Amino acid sequence: MSAYPYSPLLTDLYQLTMAYGYWQLQMHEQEAVFYLSFRHHPFNSNHALLCGIGSLVEYLKQWHFQADDLTYLSSLKDPKGAPLFPSEFLEYLARLSFSCDIDAISEGTVVFANEPLLRIQGPLLQCQLLESPILNIINFQTLVATKASRICRAAAGDPVIEFGLRRAQGPDGAVSASRAAYIGGCVATSNTLAGKLFDIPVRGTHAHSWVSAFANETESFTHYLTIMPNNSVLLVDTYDTINGVKQAIEASHTTGKNLLGIRLDSGDMASLSIAARQLLDEAGMQDTDILASNSLDEKIIQTLKQQGATINAWGVGTQLATAYDQPALDGVYKLSALQNKQGKWEYKLKLSEQAIKISNPGNPQVRRFSSRGHYCVDIIYDRQLSITDTPEYKLLNQNHSISPLDSIDHYVDLLQPICLRGSFIDSPSIHSIRETAIAATSEFCQAHKDDIYPVGIELNLDAVKQALVKQYRKSSQPREGL
Amino acid sequence: MSAYPYSPLLTDLYQLTMAYGYWQLQMHEQEAVFYLSFRHHPFNSNHALLCGIGSLVEYLKQWHFQADDLTYLSSLKDPKGAPLFPSEFLEYLARLSFSCDIDAISEGTVVFANEPLLRIQGPLLQCQLLESPILNIINFQTLVATKASRICRAAAGDPVIEFGLRRAQGPDGAVSASRAAYIGGCVATSNTLAGKLFDIPVRGTHAHSWVSAFANETESFTHYLTIMPNNSVLLVDTYDTINGVKQAIEASHTTGKNLLGIRLDSGDMASLSIAARQLLDEAGMQDTDILASNSLDEKIIQTLKQQGATINAWGVGTQLATAYDQPALDGVYKLSALQNKQGKWEYKLKLSEQAIKISNPGNPQVRRFSSRGHYCVDIIYDRQLSITDTPEYKLLNQNHSISPLDSIDHYVDLLQPICLRGSFIDSPSIHSIRETAIAATSEFCQAHKDDIYPVGIELNLDAVKQALVKQYRKSSQPREGL
Repeated sequence: MSAYPYSPLLTDLYQLTMAYGYWQLQMHEQEAVFYLSFRHHPFNSNHALLCGIGSLVEYLKQWHFQADDLTYLSSLKDPKGAPLFPSEFLEYLARLSFSCDIDAISEGTVVFANEPLLRIQGPLLQCQLLESPILNIINFQTLVATKASRICRAAAGDPVIEFGLRRAQGPDGAVSASRAAYIGGCVATSNTLAGKLFDIPVRGTHAHSWVSAFANETESFTHYLTIMPNNSVLLVDTYDTINGVKQAIEASHTTGKNLLGIRLDSGDMASLSIAARQLLDEAGMQDTDILASNSLDEKIIQTLKQQGATINAWGVGTQLATAYDQPALDGVYKLSALQNKQGKWEYKLKLSEQAIKISNPGNPQVRRFSSRGHYCVDIIYDRQLSITDTPEYKLLNQNHSISPLDSIDHYVDLLQPICLRGSFIDSPSIHSIRETAIAATSEFCQAHKDDIYPVGIELNLDAVKQALVKQYRKSSQPREGL
Repeated sequence: MSAYPYSPLLTDLYQLTMAYGYWQLQMHEQEAVFYLSFRHHPFNSNHALLCGIGSLVEYLKQWHFQADDLTYLSSLKDPKGAPLFPSEFLEYLARLSFSCDIDAISEGTVVFANEPLLRIQGPLLQCQLLESPILNIINFQTLVATKASRICRAAAGDPVIEFGLRRAQGPDGAVSASRAAYIGGCVATSNTLAGKLFDIPVRGTHAHSWVSAFANETESFTHYLTIMPNNSVLLVDTYDTINGVKQAIEASHTTGKNLLGIRLDSGDMASLSIAARQLLDEAGMQDTDILASNSLDEKIIQTLKQQGATINAWGVGTQLATAYDQPALDGVYKLSALQNKQGKWEYKLKLSEQAIKISNPGNPQVRRFSSRGHYCVDIIYDRQLSITDTPEYKLLNQNHSISPLDSIDHYVDLLQPICLRGSFIDSPSIHSIRETAIAATSEFCQAHKDDIYPVGIELNLDAVKQALVKQYRKSSQPREGL
């Protein structure tokens, strides 16, 4: 069973009506280039952690119109009651198989606003149909991985477990969030299905209802320790937290079973954890962990640590799985080049009154330059235009100054093939993605703290872009007599 | 294909470890009662719109451990490396089929904080395993239906179309949101898969990329009108909005095709819509709609209407599908009664320092009383305790005053069976749920505006609850010598 048993119908209807239009005009197999980027770093951060590529690959591997999809499409009517799509078009869709090239930045890489994260090249119709699912999957997982990374940094090395299932946005709002949270640095999830689907460690012991199901707390703890002697993190706040800690200690003594941890789920976590630590230490249980889990996020974890809380493991649910303080990433997907019927590439862009929202034309690549072991600037350039080893560029996010490069000792092109004409290249394992992500965010945050990381556009590409902007603006002037 | 092809593993691991504990103690088939409620109305509202019951039923109908689920569970290890679950327990799970009773408030009903929305009675083990998916499905869909209802009220009769797929929280974050948004009052969705799965009307025409794919806007509009003459809502802001409106009018004249609508997606929507309306009217296109779609929510729609915007259809995406200003509902699921091994019911509750967070014991029902044609109070009572036609009750949400009932002319018990011993009763169609929801919210908002709607607990039940609280508090006093 896949986490994404979704058909190509997981797309906005306008992608299908446009696809039909391209097909009618015999443009559907013209080669196109689209790219994905987001406009603002989430959570007032200065970076994001790219995530979701592996899930997108799983989705695309099974991207094929099934008979019942086509039956459904054939049932759609336009506002006058005529069929929206003729059967010849649906027969074309039935024969369609995914045949694009995709280049993407590796999952688990630190990425920045306005740079291309994924580039797709292939038949215009296919690229268009895939806009919605590509955005859906990458937007959400990048958002949650970034949030998880922030929470894990606040936890400063303590393990963070993702607990978001019950309040996540639907079943795979939860499942996708578990995957992204693990990549972002969580050590485990409570979501058993996510554990199965993605080989993520799962954790869990008991809830308040376990305690309520027995005559008293002591009985419930004694039973749990006896039944799960190696997996006993006892929830101590069902009736009274401090008394609960004492009951947990007593139950551990009575049964002779090791108390792995206690869990605090309400009240003043700082003072409760300090009191609990003292009780545990006095009982000789220095190794017993204190896990906290009550509407936590990175800010609360940081505050608790500042207050001297002796919590050393964190269960984070709603705030993480829904990215509560900013529940959507503003990713966009833009057409940047289209081969005309004569096979000549035409560069495309989308205008906007805000310069930063004007998309980049062409066939994009992102080159990340390093100096003294740290990356220091990302430069967007065009694969068909020349680029030198120390290109000149215009910053996209810092008042458009032009900067020369100096003391560069290394660079790498970030967009790398993950799919060639529909054939996917082997993906890294989720564990290796996670290790990359943890190392990358740690390195980035050490080197750049809260600085705005520079993202530039190479000057040859910028010249083409500005000329195109000028041309489009001219052609869209209101004409006389209209 | 179902929207919820998820296994019983879509649950928190602690539900499974507790289930194993109950099984070990031979408590797993003891009859239990749990109920679901939420604690705060979302969006600072005074009510919510219950949604998700139909999706939950679909999930439960296929709730069965498959061989690969059990293989996965058998692979889990405790922290010392021993199997977490013995094979005898997994064999029990393999034989398990869903056999609970479920009573729920009808989908599309206006509901309130702290009242039971769904009650499940059945074997303790099953009720426990289902906590996470029940909360996941009902929390999210109730949240989005409530949000949709707010947005539709702001639109004051104009059609609202849900456009959230690209920034929703994962594939069925989008699909579930489309379902809930339709029930909440949207007329259609852009999400084609949601259209197929739930029989929701779908809408869509074209994006900026369609315009960019041609040499100029005129060409793109002319082609679209020709190819989809009955479905042409032209997006006019790719280069310059007002010029775009003129091009759309001209293209309609040139082709002789009807311009169904134009879509505004950026800029000052109020002034642009007024200017566009004037141009359309001057061209004799009084019937052409003006659709807006740019980061809209209920507040922006209301403001635009106050500014005299001539928009008469609304496409709402991210803010709706993610419930952006409050992306999670705080639903909880509590054990309220458990039959002991002698078959006697024991009432249960969860303590809290805040009175409103103490759960209600027993076997709950909610009676909604009406006076002069409008419902006026909901009273939670226990099915095993007596209730009169005009019961005394204590308000849960208004300083706990005791109120008598007067001028009651009608009441209805809201929790009604949807499943008997695992057999589901036929659900209403999504269209009938939606009609109920629209009528119910309209009636509620007319009668109660921003008032706090009274929710009370019947006094016989409250007496049992207070006695239980006292008993639990006493038993949780720290004992001497600990």
